[in-house]
Amino acid sequence: MKSSKHIVIVGGVAGGASAAARARRHSESARITLIERGPDVSFANCGLPYHIGGEITDRDDLAVQTPTSLRKLLALDVKTLTEVTAIHPDSGKVELKDLKTGECSTLDYDELILSPGASPIRPPLPGIDDPRVLTLRNLEDMDAIIRAARTVERVAVIGAGFIGLEVAEQLVHIGKRVSLVELQEQVLPQLDPEMARPLVEALKHKGVETILGDGIQSFGGSEEGLWTNLASGRSFEVDLVVLSIGVRPEGELARNAGLALGPRGHITVDGFQRTSAPSIYAVGDVCESPDPLAGGHAAVPLGGPANRQGRTAADHIFLGDKALPYPGSIGTAIVRVFDLAAGMTGLSEKRLKGADQSFESVVVNGPSHASYFPGAETITLKLIWSPDTGRVLGAQAIGKDGVDKRLDVIATAIRAGMTIDDLVHLELSYAPPFGSAKDVVNVAGFAAANIRDGLLLPIPTMKEAAGCQIIDVRPPETSRRLPAPGAKNIPLGELRERLGEIDKDRPVYTVCQMGKTSYFAARILANHGYDARSILGGAHHQIE
Amino acid sequence: MKSSKHIVIVGGVAGGASAAARARRHSESARITLIERGPDVSFANCGLPYHIGGEITDRDDLAVQTPTSLRKLLALDVKTLTEVTAIHPDSGKVELKDLKTGECSTLDYDELILSPGASPIRPPLPGIDDPRVLTLRNLEDMDAIIRAARTVERVAVIGAGFIGLEVAEQLVHIGKRVSLVELQEQVLPQLDPEMARPLVEALKHKGVETILGDGIQSFGGSEEGLWTNLASGRSFEVDLVVLSIGVRPEGELARNAGLALGPRGHITVDGFQRTSAPSIYAVGDVCESPDPLAGGHAAVPLGGPANRQGRTAADHIFLGDKALPYPGSIGTAIVRVFDLAAGMTGLSEKRLKGADQSFESVVVNGPSHASYFPGAETITLKLIWSPDTGRVLGAQAIGKDGVDKRLDVIATAIRAGMTIDDLVHLELSYAPPFGSAKDVVNVAGFAAANIRDGLLLPIPTMKEAAGCQIIDVRPPETSRRLPAPGAKNIPLGELRERLGEIDKDRPVYTVCQMGKTSYFAARILANHGYDARSILGGAHHQIE
Repeated sequence: MKSSKHIVIVGGVAGGASAAARARRHSESARITLIERGPDVSFANCGLPYHIGGEITDRDDLAVQTPTSLRKLLALDVKTLTEVTAIHPDSGKVELKDLKTGECSTLDYDELILSPGASPIRPPLPGIDDPRVLTLRNLEDMDAIIRAARTVERVAVIGAGFIGLEVAEQLVHIGKRVSLVELQEQVLPQLDPEMARPLVEALKHKGVETILGDGIQSFGGSEEGLWTNLASGRSFEVDLVVLSIGVRPEGELARNAGLALGPRGHITVDGFQRTSAPSIYAVGDVCESPDPLAGGHAAVPLGGPANRQGRTAADHIFLGDKALPYPGSIGTAIVRVFDLAAGMTGLSEKRLKGADQSFESVVVNGPSHASYFPGAETITLKLIWSPDTGRVLGAQAIGKDGVDKRLDVIATAIRAGMTIDDLVHLELSYAPPFGSAKDVVNVAGFAAANIRDGLLLPIPTMKEAAGCQIIDVRPPETSRRLPAPGAKNIPLGELRERLGEIDKDRPVYTVCQMGKTSYFAARILANHGYDARSILGGAHHQIE
Repeated sequence: MKSSKHIVIVGGVAGGASAAARARRHSESARITLIERGPDVSFANCGLPYHIGGEITDRDDLAVQTPTSLRKLLALDVKTLTEVTAIHPDSGKVELKDLKTGECSTLDYDELILSPGASPIRPPLPGIDDPRVLTLRNLEDMDAIIRAARTVERVAVIGAGFIGLEVAEQLVHIGKRVSLVELQEQVLPQLDPEMARPLVEALKHKGVETILGDGIQSFGGSEEGLWTNLASGRSFEVDLVVLSIGVRPEGELARNAGLALGPRGHITVDGFQRTSAPSIYAVGDVCESPDPLAGGHAAVPLGGPANRQGRTAADHIFLGDKALPYPGSIGTAIVRVFDLAAGMTGLSEKRLKGADQSFESVVVNGPSHASYFPGAETITLKLIWSPDTGRVLGAQAIGKDGVDKRLDVIATAIRAGMTIDDLVHLELSYAPPFGSAKDVVNVAGFAAANIRDGLLLPIPTMKEAAGCQIIDVRPPETSRRLPAPGAKNIPLGELRERLGEIDKDRPVYTVCQMGKTSYFAARILANHGYDARSILGGAHHQIE
């Protein structure tokens, strides 16, 4: 028996449940108490939208563990419907309130792990308390949305981040008419705008009305419907609103106990998930960890980090500083929107610009597997790196297949501190059903190294070429079908013999379908003395 | 114009074609001559099996480029049906023979890139020259197999490596009765035997007769059929044989020119693909590159490496030692066999044992995406690492979905020199349709770190537990349905209260379905003072 300490864990989902399980692996004699305000523990919160849409048919599948199973499997003392009302770091006590009986009590702890999570933001707008304005955080919220959605037709989803998109998609699955409202000028504001654009098309195609650059201002209810009033003055009537405009960390308890918090109210932790108070850890959505890419601290409210942070806290309790520290989150995230997947890892161009950090970026397209094998789908991949060190800083990808794989490869490369040159020679699995001899990740590495070496001179958008000499080097058929505005068509194979048609005294911009042939063309032109640049990502990426 | 050198490239597929394309990007003025012995250039050789089985319906899809398109797009001088008969490194000349006319000539080069590839091994066995014994290397071979297969029923595929498995699978697609013969006691001999075992089941399920541990000895032909006689004395009659027992590098030309070759006849190259002769490079299946994992040189005859080696040679011609060197191949490879995918990256246990290098390994199972989301399939993942440094040395995986992704993540980790601890905290994309909060790659890292830290004490096979005290901790239903031989069933949830049923004076081995619960059980037992070990990979992996 290594220890008979008492570990108290506040919050029984992702991070808290992981911490409890890992602590029990270390010791059979430790007393472990898990306190949860809600009725459920260890449920699959990332799965909630998919039961609303019926894709996960059985509600029980979302209950990873129950209080009873946790008691049996991990010998935990599980207290659900119990709220921690105060923490006393100096005396090592927490105050509890039983929400069923109203009874209060105190509990001594040797080690305390805070995993209360984050709650959906509900701004104090007129009408916000209408019972038809719902949010989604736990199984009860999910049940409420399912009940409310059953009899209605029109739903507004406010906020087009990851959860808003998932909820919108699932509501379409069950035949609802969905309006999606987003304050920013793009959906999925975590991504750079040009990478998120295809999602709007996909939403439109499925009948979702997407309203961008507009914010909710008030709700006005009547029996027939709920008026959703936007900042622009626009109003529309719906039967149900799902609010998903972000989350706020449940940091009050920690604040009242005097723990150090970050600017947005997250509990600040170190690499072992330690807070500013001795023997108190914080994990999951409530905390902000050291940011390995941007410096400082960052909160990344995602399931993967929460689980591994919980494990880290438990390890530190039993192993001390010999435990493996949590290296910080790099923000890898993905969402499915109908037949598209879109995601990111590391830093975006947006964030780097905001932080005034120098970066380079490139956008390439490539097939999900060998282009000659049936079913290949185009992946558009944006790679962002440091011009000083060549280190990969971030990536974003969108496509119908294989987006998760490329994000995971680049997330691994970022974690390893790899450079664009390292991506060139990644040796990824290749057989025609699975990959390509030159995977799109390799191609992103090629393009980035070509930019660094001056072989690829890109311009990022068609706009910057407007009014200039643009040569469309696609086959004439493609060029006619999907015209590139203002471009003259000279197919690549005819370029050398038709150089005379291009004015050497003016800059020339080349465009193609995928951004590869235009690079080839720009190389030919540059090697013949032209000031030539290739338009990034091709028509596939540039032409709406 | 940077250069007007003459680059001669021998071999117009993967490596040669990539070298030509990359050289042209560097210079419009260089003269580039591409010499190919066959009629075709730049075809998709990895796609050949899939046209035999009709999965790639259009033969033209396999012709990535034609001599005409290469002339137009890259301004190459393409000479097909032309053989290089001698290389003279001292005078910088090659001798050519036009295979259509028989005419001979010489050609001066400034830089020579050898990319002749490798040819299928045809051992000098009795009957090997029967016209019904075919091999698969190029489009003509593929056409011959398609013609021959059209009218027959029984086919023997000799050799169950990557290509043999692909050909066998595709022949089943078009209704052939296939016998697959492999000299080793397992299919896919590149993998460790236990990881390849599920493939035999999949083959059997589709009617393929798999004969292991037996080699071809002779063929005996008659009008009605071709007798295939094996070393064991076993004989069977087929209508067609496809021989896929490996490839031999086309190194004769280099040998005659005095270039340094490796023990198996590959041209030895350095990181810039330079041979021992000045201004002569070799790329692709013909060469052996520095081996980044095992030391020395290794030949990895795969499409991805060939393409990137070709690019490296061209870069070195134009950039000299400022070019990015090829870092060596780590042998990432994958094959689809019906609904299974199996593959590897880095070093196998087999190879490490052969080289007498120390290593540790673990086998874990995990779902392809969140287990509560429809369609999750089990992936079995073997991770191999160095006990001295913790560095990941290799991995193997098998499953129905997501195998390629996990191999690619670990291939990236190997390239980066990551350790098992780094795998613990990889932050991979997680949304229910794509992944899990704890991906199977993380879980492999957890398990490896647990072994290193003494938390997980595994035994690799059920065999080693035979006759000992085995506790099956699965639910009774599962245990009855898929019994673990010699085990007593105590479900995990009852373990603590039934400790009295387990003999503390004898070692105890725990087994479950996936190898995770048995680890939990072994931790409970160890923390209660038992000498407990968990059987790796669970019944899913261990019980046939």
